[in-house]
Amino acid sequence: AEIVVLPGDGIGPEVTAAAVQVLRAVGQRYGHEFRFTHELIGGAAIDATGEPLPARTLDAARRADAVLLGAVGGPKWSDPGAKVRPEQGLLAIRKALGLYANLRPVKPHAAALGASPIKPHLLTGVDLVVVRELTGGVYFGQKQRSASAASDLCEYSVEEIERVVRRACTLARSRRGHVTSVDKANVLETSRLWREVATRVVRDEFPDVTLEHQLVDSMAMHLLSRPREYDVIVTENMFGDILTDEASMLAGSLGLLPSASLGEGRVGLYEPIHGSAPDIAGRGIANPYATILSAAMLLRHSLGLEAEARCVDKAVDAALSAGVFTADLAPGGRGVSTQAAMAAVL
Amino acid sequence: AEIVVLPGDGIGPEVTAAAVQVLRAVGQRYGHEFRFTHELIGGAAIDATGEPLPARTLDAARRADAVLLGAVGGPKWSDPGAKVRPEQGLLAIRKALGLYANLRPVKPHAAALGASPIKPHLLTGVDLVVVRELTGGVYFGQKQRSASAASDLCEYSVEEIERVVRRACTLARSRRGHVTSVDKANVLETSRLWREVATRVVRDEFPDVTLEHQLVDSMAMHLLSRPREYDVIVTENMFGDILTDEASMLAGSLGLLPSASLGEGRVGLYEPIHGSAPDIAGRGIANPYATILSAAMLLRHSLGLEAEARCVDKAVDAALSAGVFTADLAPGGRGVSTQAAMAAVL
Ligand SMILES: CC(C)[C@H](C(=O)O)[C@@H](O)C(=O)O
Ligand SMILES: CC(C)[C@H](C(=O)O)[C@@H](O)C(=O)O
Repeated sequence: AEIVVLPGDGIGPEVTAAAVQVLRAVGQRYGHEFRFTHELIGGAAIDATGEPLPARTLDAARRADAVLLGAVGGPKWSDPGAKVRPEQGLLAIRKALGLYANLRPVKPHAAALGASPIKPHLLTGVDLVVVRELTGGVYFGQKQRSASAASDLCEYSVEEIERVVRRACTLARSRRGHVTSVDKANVLETSRLWREVATRVVRDEFPDVTLEHQLVDSMAMHLLSRPREYDVIVTENMFGDILTDEASMLAGSLGLLPSASLGEGRVGLYEPIHGSAPDIAGRGIANPYATILSAAMLLRHSLGLEAEARCVDKAVDAALSAGVFTADLAPGGRGVSTQAAMAAVL
Repeated sequence: AEIVVLPGDGIGPEVTAAAVQVLRAVGQRYGHEFRFTHELIGGAAIDATGEPLPARTLDAARRADAVLLGAVGGPKWSDPGAKVRPEQGLLAIRKALGLYANLRPVKPHAAALGASPIKPHLLTGVDLVVVRELTGGVYFGQKQRSASAASDLCEYSVEEIERVVRRACTLARSRRGHVTSVDKANVLETSRLWREVATRVVRDEFPDVTLEHQLVDSMAMHLLSRPREYDVIVTENMFGDILTDEASMLAGSLGLLPSASLGEGRVGLYEPIHGSAPDIAGRGIANPYATILSAAMLLRHSLGLEAEARCVDKAVDAALSAGVFTADLAPGGRGVSTQAAMAAVL
């Protein structure tokens, strides 16, 4: 299999390097040949080529079986007046590859509950997946700017809503069969369309799935007060961005949450949900677990290697159970190195 | 003073009735004459007049010193095909009165920490106010709908951002002098404008205030992991809606959070941040504290009666300290009635 690695910025290179080593080990143990090509994206690509997503990177991704990404962005490229921004590279590759469904599973690990701000008794048994729409909404609508005002357009088509709701329902069928659709239908027209389409898709195509609607503001509350009740949560791009960062607190740290971005095509993109953490970049202390777990999702969703994926999940589980904590997970903040965490998984 | 009461829907009439009794008691004790006029808004107004905000209600509000509102909305008026919706009444009165700054203080009460999903040690000392922009953004931009798509426009002008940032800075000066401005500047044009304007206003007009920028996704996380670090948080309409419901979990229940909506004009609008809770409406068990605390904000911000406001705050404090809990606050869910909670405050 051909895997394109996009380390990106900040801690991106460190965490992807760790995940690549884990994938190599899986390849050896199970007798698969994984070929890795490294390409540029984000700030690193801007520095080298002037563009956040060089054509060469996109071409390589298109030809690959899967893409493993670190993170993009950093103060170096965040000037308010900047013409190009690292984040544009990430948004552009999601859009160009048609990766409209971003799966973000949240399943708190017993050993990491100490790191969560949430009371532990609420967290036992939590096992949810947020399916975030990834190529529509206010992220991709027309932007305008004048001297005295600015605007962003939030747009959704019926088809964009249908396909992501279908993906969520299909996922729910392999789980507990429950979908919670999140919108702001009491205010937004796009949300009213979202609600109608979700209702129809479930009624006509997934009568075995139970569907519940939640307003995004209530959801931000209930995610904390009764997280156990959720199975699959499907929502639009911006709400999904906010709710998954919030949900990461259930797991104790953003450093534990992987994601898979999928479309109709063959290639999927896998990345931790955390950012480039420029403050700790280059110090060898970043938490690699989220990227390693993203590699497990890559094995599962793009390569169809379920046993191998489970093996990686279990290895991370074991490392956490053994108390191999990076600083973000360690009470008091003194943790092991990226290398040590990776070694524990290996 | 003239106070217009808009009970609205669901539990609105119950909680506003309790708050009015508390205001009457304040009037007697301190020798003020408060005159109350009740008007229709939301679903109740739709049922009676066909409109969610009748002209008579708006006229009365315009002539008043302050408006006390319960809540609007409910399943009865939530039909996807509905032409008028209760929420439109609320949005319209905010807009018509120019109430662009919505103050939502969050200060967890020791006695209510049991009801919060957050670990108690993170909550001691939390004392923050979210200043939510209330008359702009995607709530009020143009909405479109076709057979195959829908859109909502998010717009902000320099002036809209300036005035709410100024309000947040002025508030911060009377507190710990720190403002956190929340946006999504790595993706949205309106957010980039927001960040530029906030930076300039603080630099030019409030050099004594410290300003920090946070991305909304990170904020959803940090609000839980380090709530003590925030003093005044200022953000746009939709982000403020989501973040304040999330922040209510710090206080243990949405039933404890009041709000004040202010503009340049004299009249302010005061309402609990919770909704109309149709599931428990009419049963006499709704939590009236948030509305009573909103009445305290009314005394403070619209009538300039600081001592009276403190007296009400303290009375709610005492009721909570004495363990007078409605069901939302009671472990196990068995609580006292709305009347009993009000009586404890009286
Ligand atoms: C970096 C940013 C553009 C991105 C997003 O908002 O999608 C990130 O927050 C994420 O969640 O993947
Ligand atoms: C009822 C609804 C329109 C309203 C809003 O989103 O502003 C409510 O959620 C609030 O927070 O006051």
